[in-house]
Amino acid sequence: EEQLEEPEEGPSTKPESASRLPYMFDSSKEAKKLFECIINPVKLDRFFAEFWERKPLLIQRYKLTPYYNDGWFSTAELDHILRQENIQYSVNLDVTSYENGKRETHNPIGRAYAPVVWDYYQSGCSLRLLNPQTYSRRVWKLLSVLQEYFGCCVGANIYLTPPGTQGFAPHYDDIEAFILQLEGRKNWKLYATRTGSEKLPRFSSENLNEADLGEPILNRVLEAGDLLYFPRGTIHQASALEDSHSLHITVSCYQKNSWFDFFEKLLPRALQIAYEEDVELRKGVPLNYLQNMGVVNSDKETPERKMILNKVEKLMTSIFKNAPIDAAFDQMGRGFIHDSLPPVLSESEKSCSIHGTGERWDSKRNQVTSMVEIEPDSMVKIIRQGALRLVLEEDQVHVYHNLENSRIYQGVEPQFVDIPLEAAPAVEFLIHSYPEYISVDSLPLEDIQLKIDIITALYEKGLLLTQEPLEPLYEDGSVDDEKPE
Amino acid sequence: EEQLEEPEEGPSTKPESASRLPYMFDSSKEAKKLFECIINPVKLDRFFAEFWERKPLLIQRYKLTPYYNDGWFSTAELDHILRQENIQYSVNLDVTSYENGKRETHNPIGRAYAPVVWDYYQSGCSLRLLNPQTYSRRVWKLLSVLQEYFGCCVGANIYLTPPGTQGFAPHYDDIEAFILQLEGRKNWKLYATRTGSEKLPRFSSENLNEADLGEPILNRVLEAGDLLYFPRGTIHQASALEDSHSLHITVSCYQKNSWFDFFEKLLPRALQIAYEEDVELRKGVPLNYLQNMGVVNSDKETPERKMILNKVEKLMTSIFKNAPIDAAFDQMGRGFIHDSLPPVLSESEKSCSIHGTGERWDSKRNQVTSMVEIEPDSMVKIIRQGALRLVLEEDQVHVYHNLENSRIYQGVEPQFVDIPLEAAPAVEFLIHSYPEYISVDSLPLEDIQLKIDIITALYEKGLLLTQEPLEPLYEDGSVDDEKPE
Amino acid sequence: EEQLEEPEEGPSTKPESASRLPYMFDSSKEAKKLFECIINPVKLDRFFAEFWERKPLLIQRYKLTPYYNDGWFSTAELDHILRQENIQYSVNLDVTSYENGKRETHNPIGRAYAPVVWDYYQSGCSLRLLNPQTYSRRVWKLLSVLQEYFGCCVGANIYLTPPGTQGFAPHYDDIEAFILQLEGRKNWKLYATRTGSEKLPRFSSENLNEADLGEPILNRVLEAGDLLYFPRGTIHQASALEDSHSLHITVSCYQKNSWFDFFEKLLPRALQIAYEEDVELRKGVPLNYLQNMGVVNSDKETPERKMILNKVEKLMTSIFKNAPIDAAFDQMGRGFIHDSLPPVLSESEKSCSIHGTGERWDSKRNQVTSMVEIEPDSMVKIIRQGALRLVLEEDQVHVYHNLENSRIYQGVEPQFVDIPLEAAPAVEFLIHSYPEYISVDSLPLEDIQLKIDIITALYEKGLLLTQEPLEPLYEDGSVDDEKPE
Amino acid sequence: EEQLEEPEEGPSTKPESASRLPYMFDSSKEAKKLFECIINPVKLDRFFAEFWERKPLLIQRYKLTPYYNDGWFSTAELDHILRQENIQYSVNLDVTSYENGKRETHNPIGRAYAPVVWDYYQSGCSLRLLNPQTYSRRVWKLLSVLQEYFGCCVGANIYLTPPGTQGFAPHYDDIEAFILQLEGRKNWKLYATRTGSEKLPRFSSENLNEADLGEPILNRVLEAGDLLYFPRGTIHQASALEDSHSLHITVSCYQKNSWFDFFEKLLPRALQIAYEEDVELRKGVPLNYLQNMGVVNSDKETPERKMILNKVEKLMTSIFKNAPIDAAFDQMGRGFIHDSLPPVLSESEKSCSIHGTGERWDSKRNQVTSMVEIEPDSMVKIIRQGALRLVLEEDQVHVYHNLENSRIYQGVEPQFVDIPLEAAPAVEFLIHSYPEYISVDSLPLEDIQLKIDIITALYEKGLLLTQEPLEPLYEDGSVDDEKPE
Repeated sequence: EEQLEEPEEGPSTKPESASRLPYMFDSSKEAKKLFECIINPVKLDRFFAEFWERKPLLIQRYKLTPYYNDGWFSTAELDHILRQENIQYSVNLDVTSYENGKRETHNPIGRAYAPVVWDYYQSGCSLRLLNPQTYSRRVWKLLSVLQEYFGCCVGANIYLTPPGTQGFAPHYDDIEAFILQLEGRKNWKLYATRTGSEKLPRFSSENLNEADLGEPILNRVLEAGDLLYFPRGTIHQASALEDSHSLHITVSCYQKNSWFDFFEKLLPRALQIAYEEDVELRKGVPLNYLQNMGVVNSDKETPERKMILNKVEKLMTSIFKNAPIDAAFDQMGRGFIHDSLPPVLSESEKSCSIHGTGERWDSKRNQVTSMVEIEPDSMVKIIRQGALRLVLEEDQVHVYHNLENSRIYQGVEPQFVDIPLEAAPAVEFLIHSYPEYISVDSLPLEDIQLKIDIITALYEKGLLLTQEPLEPLYEDGSVDDEKPE
Repeated sequence: EEQLEEPEEGPSTKPESASRLPYMFDSSKEAKKLFECIINPVKLDRFFAEFWERKPLLIQRYKLTPYYNDGWFSTAELDHILRQENIQYSVNLDVTSYENGKRETHNPIGRAYAPVVWDYYQSGCSLRLLNPQTYSRRVWKLLSVLQEYFGCCVGANIYLTPPGTQGFAPHYDDIEAFILQLEGRKNWKLYATRTGSEKLPRFSSENLNEADLGEPILNRVLEAGDLLYFPRGTIHQASALEDSHSLHITVSCYQKNSWFDFFEKLLPRALQIAYEEDVELRKGVPLNYLQNMGVVNSDKETPERKMILNKVEKLMTSIFKNAPIDAAFDQMGRGFIHDSLPPVLSESEKSCSIHGTGERWDSKRNQVTSMVEIEPDSMVKIIRQGALRLVLEEDQVHVYHNLENSRIYQGVEPQFVDIPLEAAPAVEFLIHSYPEYISVDSLPLEDIQLKIDIITALYEKGLLLTQEPLEPLYEDGSVDDEKPE
Repeated sequence: EEQLEEPEEGPSTKPESASRLPYMFDSSKEAKKLFECIINPVKLDRFFAEFWERKPLLIQRYKLTPYYNDGWFSTAELDHILRQENIQYSVNLDVTSYENGKRETHNPIGRAYAPVVWDYYQSGCSLRLLNPQTYSRRVWKLLSVLQEYFGCCVGANIYLTPPGTQGFAPHYDDIEAFILQLEGRKNWKLYATRTGSEKLPRFSSENLNEADLGEPILNRVLEAGDLLYFPRGTIHQASALEDSHSLHITVSCYQKNSWFDFFEKLLPRALQIAYEEDVELRKGVPLNYLQNMGVVNSDKETPERKMILNKVEKLMTSIFKNAPIDAAFDQMGRGFIHDSLPPVLSESEKSCSIHGTGERWDSKRNQVTSMVEIEPDSMVKIIRQGALRLVLEEDQVHVYHNLENSRIYQGVEPQFVDIPLEAAPAVEFLIHSYPEYISVDSLPLEDIQLKIDIITALYEKGLLLTQEPLEPLYEDGSVDDEKPE
Repeated sequence: EEQLEEPEEGPSTKPESASRLPYMFDSSKEAKKLFECIINPVKLDRFFAEFWERKPLLIQRYKLTPYYNDGWFSTAELDHILRQENIQYSVNLDVTSYENGKRETHNPIGRAYAPVVWDYYQSGCSLRLLNPQTYSRRVWKLLSVLQEYFGCCVGANIYLTPPGTQGFAPHYDDIEAFILQLEGRKNWKLYATRTGSEKLPRFSSENLNEADLGEPILNRVLEAGDLLYFPRGTIHQASALEDSHSLHITVSCYQKNSWFDFFEKLLPRALQIAYEEDVELRKGVPLNYLQNMGVVNSDKETPERKMILNKVEKLMTSIFKNAPIDAAFDQMGRGFIHDSLPPVLSESEKSCSIHGTGERWDSKRNQVTSMVEIEPDSMVKIIRQGALRLVLEEDQVHVYHNLENSRIYQGVEPQFVDIPLEAAPAVEFLIHSYPEYISVDSLPLEDIQLKIDIITALYEKGLLLTQEPLEPLYEDGSVDDEKPE
């Protein structure tokens, strides 16, 4: 039984809005708007109630709006990238085929030059561009906005398939998948999860044998403009029709972002805290435990065993009572910040941040000019709601942020700014005030100098936007201490 | 306020029994008897109710029975060991001093020859023999029996201190300490734990500054025959009196054997099992968690936050409900087996085990002779109650044992015998039957050959004792297939 | 006594030619021309006869041609780079100071934003841009051409110093240094090498103490347009004058490119070959060597000692006779290829190589078009004389090349193309024919298909230029097997 | 054609002398005597002139002296070791078979208990005891004396083979092999080396295929008392006769002790020294080397190429002229000391060394007694000629020695005593004076205290023997500062 969405009247949103959404004041609203466009005309409520992590959803928009997914990426852009960038086989690009049940990778070593890549394509190989966000500003924008919506790392692959071929064996993945058909047509087959333990899995499958799959639960052609969503664990395969190539982008999210991952962070911390606070946990286990506990004694009903089981339960309760739930979520958040893409900044954002203002070299006068300073009445906000996270670690306050992340996944170490403990309320205030601008003076700190220092520190790391570009101090460009009168 | 035990009538047990306890049928009873002797005349019940992990206990026996601790070790034995064995500085022996608040280690590199060691002693240095059980059969016996009583690794150091000196700075340790004064006299000072977090600690302290300690809670001279017990975390220092050297052995146990250590094994396993059995744990965390959770949001009272907290609690309960408590205790037990000393076998035990029976080389006839076989009516028992542990790991049954352990701590890899799953009940039966002998035939298995095979496998690893030495098959020593008629 | 060059009539070459040299047919001639410009008006012969690895050379050109070094880099370009690129402190940029004999590094962590960097500059700190070739196309071009001239890796740093300050302590480096003053003025002091063992050193010095240096051998102001050369091991320090900032680029070469480095590669290979070919080397050393050889026996004059010394000499001769000198030089060459910068390609070079020709995506027809093929009469040459190296390694023929190197030092693994042994003469022929184009057909191979295959393989790796851009096969763009008639 | 020695009158030396040689004053003479016994009646001169590293030698002594090899080891001793020691499969013992061209290893995991081992033997498996010197004092003695003769590490394996079986496939080894038949009989087949490069190889072969071997060059039965020698690289296999088991010991030496190994140590040191002393080696290689050198240019005859080749030759000569030949031999010697067995000390040697004399614990008086001191007239010698080696390393003088080595190969780190540079002549004097005793006073040092210090330091490390046991200082055993009057 297919999960199929047939819009009667077509998308209510203009298609171009998806790839060219206007700048919005509030990054989380912008993110929500973008995702609404992507699943248009299905509504958010319905999507999360019926489909998300539950079952596939096919949205056919090609009849009314075949151009709906235009703008994200094109084969012409791929050709351009191959010519302009140092694309490496295996690192950035895979050349694959799946024929007669045999899946092969044909990657040579070294740089992928366009003519050689097209030779492979002509001979029936599929191309998979692994990190389009590194080379395409639009894909970067798409993913960096969506990651704010999902609160987790959002990735993408581009798949180009020659007519009449298939590039991959049936398999399932460990991510929530959104397939946006960009060019041509592809026939998709989805299959039911085989066992309960393969539901919402943490790891992708090997290549599967077609014989083991049973009947597809969905078997439809995706056309340019369409969207196909399916949860992690859904077995799938797809082949281009004989009369057309196929290009699509797979947007993925929620990899290792489950409750398991949360508890993996929570439990060791909960134990450590209970150890520090509850001396009971530091006491020795009973002398006689070896004779009463263990699988070999699991059928015993001795009083010692009962007492030990009671004790375990009591200690468990103690561990859970003190479990640092918020700190564990902050660790999840910290991981997200590390994995995420840096935000795409508009020109107007640049001019209101460290990128656009401040000291510069004056070639004519051979000296530095245009000094600016944060003032008590400067109006500021954080640059994106999802670009930073305040985390307490070992009595230190770190503001983790993704502004210096590279467009390659985990290309840099986690970046953070150290904040003095007493300034933490100011950062909290900034976070909670978003998306509104606030004046430096209004920060909940005693000392005006501390307010200016903390805002300056964040501003100089690119974490803040000012409402207006900061003005250079003196029109005459003088930067020494003597002010003009 | 000192914890002092002044026996009015002296020990009720003959002193020599401690170091020369007779062989007992049941290793756990032997272990209990030995520990009773060590804390004699204090009774077990009282010791564990009042002192264990709670407060120090001084037992003065020197007046009535100054010879009470004799037999475990002596300075003469140390001299002998230095001459016979390759004792290495830093590995087996430390040369230390503590003078005017300064603690120093004087270890040269390489082998410790007796005359050089005694030169250090003459110049006022203390000697610490780090693993006397490797060189002294009596200490080995002492520790290997005690480890059965405590169900955890039991270690020992020997301390020899010249008259009028002190070898170590004040500090606390991470083990329960039993000080048995062997020769001479030493003045001990114990101090109260400084903070709650130093109570029953998992790690030993640095050398402490005398100025930070306050008044001692105990300040007494230990004489040959006496015992001093104190819990981990108790700050202590001791110096030999001017008129006498001091020799004592410190028996230690319960290092990293606390409930914390248990939960450290339990929690990841509990999470993994819950992950496999409860699909709820595999679902994603909510999209909006970053805005509602984390330290920065801990004061929020949004419905989303409440829902998330409820969900965490529900999942916690699920994790605990399925927690593999017995498996975690088995992992503790497995660790104990790995860390523990091999048992000291008596000659009669050897003659009823793999050590004494079976095929041997007949030099006269230049062939192998004396073949033996396990028969259905062979009577067997495990060699020590605490020498083996049945553990289920990844659908395999391992019988971990300490018989091939070296007398050096963790000198060998964990040793185990693989047991077919269907034979596990036989091993359980053997364990639960201890200390009684059972016939091979009485094992709860269907197949007599399987019974013989499993017993043979355990016997050949040294894990079993037979009630009588196994008889060679044929009196004439023939070992070929043709039986004599 | 200073090594000073005072041109009477000024440079004979137009200054702009240095940074804007026209494309030349022969990359080694272009390289030579560029270096001539750099040391203009000193002649090559004189430079290498009198100064190279011998003594410093100062060329003052500022009076006649103050613009002589213009075009390589400017402070304005640095400002631009800081705004456009993700410049990281410590990785790409150092912020330093040297005041009152104290050298400090002030690098924060993370990205260097322009306003923050200029703040440091304003407070008197020097800036060192570590790999300008990564961000400046002109510096890349400069270095990539010079490396062909020197046959070794050529690097560069940019130094910007505020007026009246000094950024570094006196020290010496392990490279030949060419200082090109770009803006402002700087006073340089050079000092004599202190000891013979510091002459032409393999490793740079620590920061030195001014007190240890003696009188400078050169003490002059470098002005924009000037050049200062000094050999590795020359102690130096420099400070900007009070009235001007200073910007210079230091071009460096010949790091670890000495005879020592050659023999380090040669000797183990020579020994290995002698081992394989001379059974004498496999024989055991004499039984009595311990009694006759060694420092303790070096004064002995026993016949055994004499015989052993003779034997050693004879074996040495054997090792040297078979030493694979050319193979060791090839290893040096291979190292150079790995370390070197990729060539800067002109647009016309791109259009005659894999970058510009060949299959491309036709967006209108949604298919691949413009297939090209190497033909027997195609005219080809290698892309740069110094861009590839043919090396025999363990019976395999590798063509190492630098075309896929990154603009970061050793940013990628050594890149090579495997060549069948029988095709090696074709590659040799290509190398020796440079800079002339040759026809594919003229290669010294038997089989025309092998000729086309080997040229296609090299062409597809970007190693070859064609004389004219390859023509697409069919004007109608058809790429299938049926040719139009 | 076999290399066969048929003594007409039998050995001239009493057989028992081999395994029970009397203690000799000079360890190198004792070593020579022992090896003479082993190859008796063949003379040393003839052995080294005709056979050593050249061809196999079979010495048949069984008819006249079947007991000639008795005493080194026996199957009964193996049985005893299996019962007393913790023998581990794979580490100390291999259980193998070779049947129908298939070589198998049957090692279980863990400790090898005698009855289980004999089960394997009964089923036709061969046993190989890997390091008999660890468990057999006689084998230890044999090898430790022989290593002084050969000046290299001497090892041994014991092989026990059941009647009518073979335990190993044909192969060759990387050591000189001496097979001493101890019990029973075994048929040996030796085969010619297949290629020149397999002559005197540095590495052992894989198991070889019988079909590849050709006709044996020797095919004879070895009986108890016989000896078979063959050089490394000799292909061999052996099987026990149907009517008898076989026990032999293989004594091995000259593993990685060839001229190659010497030059491997010499060449890098020679290069380093030349680098320091000859500035020519620090100069850069010529700019044009890439165009003139390398395999691709090896046929060129340009003047540049000739000049470079001349330069290489000149520098080679410089490198060899300064080559530190003695230092490289010392490194070989140092390696030998590290690999070698510690000497077996007699009781009388112990009483004249650190093992027997000096301070001891007096249990009656509870204090240290019997202090001894080295005096100017003490007569000393080094304990074995081959037990120590004086090595200069980075301006430090180390006396490497094997006295603390374990009986397991490389069981401990290299052991050495640091000697002040000015005391080196004293150690040289001691070494050259061996085997004579010298007085401390006669050492070639200025200061009597330095003489005593250096001798005391060596004595306390066990490196010296005194002519007579040192006398305790005072008969009354007093050790305090007040001397008796």
